[in-house]
Amino acid sequence: MVIVMRKDATEAQINHLVAKLKEKGLSAHVSKGTERTIVGAIGDERILQAVPLAAFPGVEKSMQILQPFKLVSRDFKAEPTVVQVGPAKIGGRHFGMIAGPCAIESEEQLITAARKVKALGANLLRGGAFKPRSSPYAFQGLGEEGLKLLAQAGKETGLPVVTEVMNVNQVDMVGQYADMLQIGARNMQNFDLLRAVGEVKKPILLKRGLSATIKEWLMSAEYILSQGNYEVVLCERGIRTFETYTRNTLDLAAVPAAKELSHLPVVVDPSHATGRRSLIAPMARAALAAGADGLTIEVHPHPEDALCDGDQSLHPEEFEQVINDIKPMLPLFGKTI
Amino acid sequence: MVIVMRKDATEAQINHLVAKLKEKGLSAHVSKGTERTIVGAIGDERILQAVPLAAFPGVEKSMQILQPFKLVSRDFKAEPTVVQVGPAKIGGRHFGMIAGPCAIESEEQLITAARKVKALGANLLRGGAFKPRSSPYAFQGLGEEGLKLLAQAGKETGLPVVTEVMNVNQVDMVGQYADMLQIGARNMQNFDLLRAVGEVKKPILLKRGLSATIKEWLMSAEYILSQGNYEVVLCERGIRTFETYTRNTLDLAAVPAAKELSHLPVVVDPSHATGRRSLIAPMARAALAAGADGLTIEVHPHPEDALCDGDQSLHPEEFEQVINDIKPMLPLFGKTI
Amino acid sequence: MVIVMRKDATEAQINHLVAKLKEKGLSAHVSKGTERTIVGAIGDERILQAVPLAAFPGVEKSMQILQPFKLVSRDFKAEPTVVQVGPAKIGGRHFGMIAGPCAIESEEQLITAARKVKALGANLLRGGAFKPRSSPYAFQGLGEEGLKLLAQAGKETGLPVVTEVMNVNQVDMVGQYADMLQIGARNMQNFDLLRAVGEVKKPILLKRGLSATIKEWLMSAEYILSQGNYEVVLCERGIRTFETYTRNTLDLAAVPAAKELSHLPVVVDPSHATGRRSLIAPMARAALAAGADGLTIEVHPHPEDALCDGDQSLHPEEFEQVINDIKPMLPLFGKTI
Amino acid sequence: MVIVMRKDATEAQINHLVAKLKEKGLSAHVSKGTERTIVGAIGDERILQAVPLAAFPGVEKSMQILQPFKLVSRDFKAEPTVVQVGPAKIGGRHFGMIAGPCAIESEEQLITAARKVKALGANLLRGGAFKPRSSPYAFQGLGEEGLKLLAQAGKETGLPVVTEVMNVNQVDMVGQYADMLQIGARNMQNFDLLRAVGEVKKPILLKRGLSATIKEWLMSAEYILSQGNYEVVLCERGIRTFETYTRNTLDLAAVPAAKELSHLPVVVDPSHATGRRSLIAPMARAALAAGADGLTIEVHPHPEDALCDGDQSLHPEEFEQVINDIKPMLPLFGKTI
Repeated sequence: MVIVMRKDATEAQINHLVAKLKEKGLSAHVSKGTERTIVGAIGDERILQAVPLAAFPGVEKSMQILQPFKLVSRDFKAEPTVVQVGPAKIGGRHFGMIAGPCAIESEEQLITAARKVKALGANLLRGGAFKPRSSPYAFQGLGEEGLKLLAQAGKETGLPVVTEVMNVNQVDMVGQYADMLQIGARNMQNFDLLRAVGEVKKPILLKRGLSATIKEWLMSAEYILSQGNYEVVLCERGIRTFETYTRNTLDLAAVPAAKELSHLPVVVDPSHATGRRSLIAPMARAALAAGADGLTIEVHPHPEDALCDGDQSLHPEEFEQVINDIKPMLPLFGKTI
Repeated sequence: MVIVMRKDATEAQINHLVAKLKEKGLSAHVSKGTERTIVGAIGDERILQAVPLAAFPGVEKSMQILQPFKLVSRDFKAEPTVVQVGPAKIGGRHFGMIAGPCAIESEEQLITAARKVKALGANLLRGGAFKPRSSPYAFQGLGEEGLKLLAQAGKETGLPVVTEVMNVNQVDMVGQYADMLQIGARNMQNFDLLRAVGEVKKPILLKRGLSATIKEWLMSAEYILSQGNYEVVLCERGIRTFETYTRNTLDLAAVPAAKELSHLPVVVDPSHATGRRSLIAPMARAALAAGADGLTIEVHPHPEDALCDGDQSLHPEEFEQVINDIKPMLPLFGKTI
Repeated sequence: MVIVMRKDATEAQINHLVAKLKEKGLSAHVSKGTERTIVGAIGDERILQAVPLAAFPGVEKSMQILQPFKLVSRDFKAEPTVVQVGPAKIGGRHFGMIAGPCAIESEEQLITAARKVKALGANLLRGGAFKPRSSPYAFQGLGEEGLKLLAQAGKETGLPVVTEVMNVNQVDMVGQYADMLQIGARNMQNFDLLRAVGEVKKPILLKRGLSATIKEWLMSAEYILSQGNYEVVLCERGIRTFETYTRNTLDLAAVPAAKELSHLPVVVDPSHATGRRSLIAPMARAALAAGADGLTIEVHPHPEDALCDGDQSLHPEEFEQVINDIKPMLPLFGKTI
Repeated sequence: MVIVMRKDATEAQINHLVAKLKEKGLSAHVSKGTERTIVGAIGDERILQAVPLAAFPGVEKSMQILQPFKLVSRDFKAEPTVVQVGPAKIGGRHFGMIAGPCAIESEEQLITAARKVKALGANLLRGGAFKPRSSPYAFQGLGEEGLKLLAQAGKETGLPVVTEVMNVNQVDMVGQYADMLQIGARNMQNFDLLRAVGEVKKPILLKRGLSATIKEWLMSAEYILSQGNYEVVLCERGIRTFETYTRNTLDLAAVPAAKELSHLPVVVDPSHATGRRSLIAPMARAALAAGADGLTIEVHPHPEDALCDGDQSLHPEEFEQVINDIKPMLPLFGKTI
């Protein structure tokens, strides 16, 4: 930590700060420049983060030297993590192609979707039983009934299944049916939920929050790893910006950025990121080219009738086009589905 | 709902859409302009919102006519809501001055803070027992022990107390100790939690999410009201933008905006909004001038030693300055603490 | 400047960096911590800013110690600057109330507006002759003809006039008619234009860019001061965020922030910031309470017929309400119009 | 245009609006729904855009039906535009690979860079003679001397050259030396400059503004086309968001979005978008996969010594890696350099 003193900071203020740092078990290095005095605090980073340095008289600002995360860091583990979900793998050479409807609506809808995406080349099935909806009057999902349908569709097609868990009380129940648990964007900083899925022996798909920085996203992953669950896949799904033509702004640079900072695999959700069917295929291709370890795409047998996100759900034929676009690119990037 | 067809939309596509709307129980009004055909869908707004109109062939875009919220709307209730929290009132002529430490750290810290803010004119006491922290290694709050200290400090000073509830499992417990439950910014779209506090007979302080629009914020309030709890106070606490000088960007226009859309009272949190002690007093004054129904301000007896948000916590003397600034302004805005 | 080396930086890389810094005339201070080596570069800040430190092998990041601006800084001049525009003053105890139509449309429209705002208490008249419009097909202003009308209206009412200059070629011409030159938000980083108005002996009203940080705004002011023109008034007019209910997001914390960083006066434009007539009065009050040195407000005799920004132009009676709100607040903040 | 009346709008207010629309030569269609009355205004879109509908009593909001642009629209011209710059083409099957230093610094620096990028496969040379710098104390470019060096390097290597023009006075001069004129991001809404380059017989590279929506970007292109210059290439270079790890956020979805709205070619600048050397190669690949018609990349013989943007300039060997990544992808996307 580097602490910059105000131009008019007094000797007493500098001494007071240094004394406090020492009291916390840190050593301090004072450097007087031509315009500002700088104090370098040396020692355990965690202690430093807890000290409200700007609250000290005479302090102008403090600047962190190290990243705030540890277990998720490339410094901690240099080789890329490969996450196993049933028979599928995500990370390293393994490309995860997650597909399925936004919400589980009925047995027929789900099994139709599952068979289609399986036939076209998906290796994981998605579908929501608990749906976070901005309106209390919108369809909220089938709940446990939906989970049963999902587990059944997974069994029938041989696809491992991933579904969202919305609160700490659902973790056990969802864990009984699903092969992978998804933390939605709106829950990325639901820290109790992160801790709860950190105690589960299931891989986690952690979506980036709408307004989360890359570092905050990695800190949320750190919550999960710090509880002992190292099977985390990050998912970039667009951030909120001023642009309104797309539902969100897909931040594809976050893929190589997260991968240079962390060993965890990163997949991309072009459906939520764009909210427009016409943009999903190009963004799926771009995600692979940017180095993504997989995709998650919403596919519905009849988007017009979808109870959730029909506007951005692909027809199976449109999904086939995405697959056809992706397949010849995979070898260029050393990936296989 | 107004649906704009693509320039090249066929007669068959228009008919298909109209048929679907009728099937959903809506009537349709087709208007052919010089450049585009427009379909007006007339009927119950909730049905309309569930139809993925952009998924229909030939549709260019759809545009909503009505606001998506109902119970929180000024259309539904024209007079401003006044929320009673113990002896204090927020809304209408009543200005709520909520103050106290970010986190409850010890009996001494809390009771010192409570006595100070009471003496200076606060009419509600705040303090966190469960703290949402972006790092798993940061102080996470004292939990139920903290709630007990809070209830005790409230009793001793006569101040009603407000504290954050982070997950559905804590709602009952927190409700036993607190007079008002706070939903934090990161949980503004934790819909299960919103539903849970909607079933409680306690007033709720609903913070705006970091990247939530005013309408999404009101929709989250709608979740609570739709469960039967009408005692909701909205809290603007800054949104996330590109500006880094301040911790967040305080969106003060959201105060009169929320108040023209909704009957609910709106308070402002200048501490989290700015993250800088020097900016809290001017933003507190500006909030009142913008029409806010109250303020929530972090005050700590010794900010340097704070375990959470010390950088933005006011010394009691600094809080006194805020109060001194605010008091002569109150009559101009028809408010009393 | 503090330079943080990568964890795996070699001795040779550190030496190479240090040698380069010395070559540039700076001295270097190397500090080896437990996890990172840090190099402090000591010397003239301007030289440091020009060195692409992240381009050096082994460098992780560099962090600036000082603000990049100088002449606009409070460090350079501690007392607040008061800018004189004809008989009016802005800054210190002097509150500037700038009002008038968005665009000058006709002699009658302008003189009607000018008389009204003068009668109601404005002390400067605004009106655009050159209008930056996002559409090439929109009304672009009356040009020099408009400037003549403006000068005439100023003469007749005794109000000094402020108007926008859009390109370097217009600076001389606009300077012949106007008492104060406005740099619009879209031109805040039109550096040639900034330099050009820096050479003029007229006060400048510098609007903040839609996506400019406070520091970039001050850097643009620095351009003007660096050419010898110290008569600059900053104008906060809303920044672009994800919120769509308002045209922009008024960043009122930028007012005390700019004033603690700089000695220049700061005024607020609630018309462009909100784009909604109903929000202009509360934001005008809030601006004053936040410490603003003035306001600029669009007033049109008949907003329905306005050729530009009619949606956000106040009727004279609405402007009267703003004035009536503001007047009793002025003494509380030590200001007079 | 669809105009939604307030719930409490009176018959007189509706009639007043309808009368005004008719006065403007538009016809009006009034539709009374269960909750709101809607007025459809039918006629020439340009007239509609100039009417400040929200200024009318009783109006809640108005919603546009058509895009505001015309000449740049796919509706106007369905086939993709191919822009010819000297021997190079951009658009359709033709991929433009623009490379060179941020700023022209010396004859040796420029010719070294030019020869390298030519040898590696670039087909256009870039280099700035007039540099928009946020600090008045930073290197501002060599001016006309730089333009001469650029023209000379272009001649020697056979590469057409592109360089930025910063103000209306420079347009003629820059046009004498350059094959393509660049409008920088900060000038995207410098409307006088757009008009000026619209009158030139040279292709234009129009960068997207930092906070410009896709539609505003297209409207700026419309300015140029409306003056008779149809040779415009759009350039996505990142937008400003809350994320600070990257210099800007590269909005790659804007590439297929702009291409579905417009016939103009779109290239991508991963250098400014990311500001980090490590992210340029993945984003270059992703841009191609998203459908971009070209790239513009900063390459400097010695980034450490660069006077501008050295942090994000590639070494020639790094640029070679980008080219090697791109080449095998081109056939998959039907493109050739």
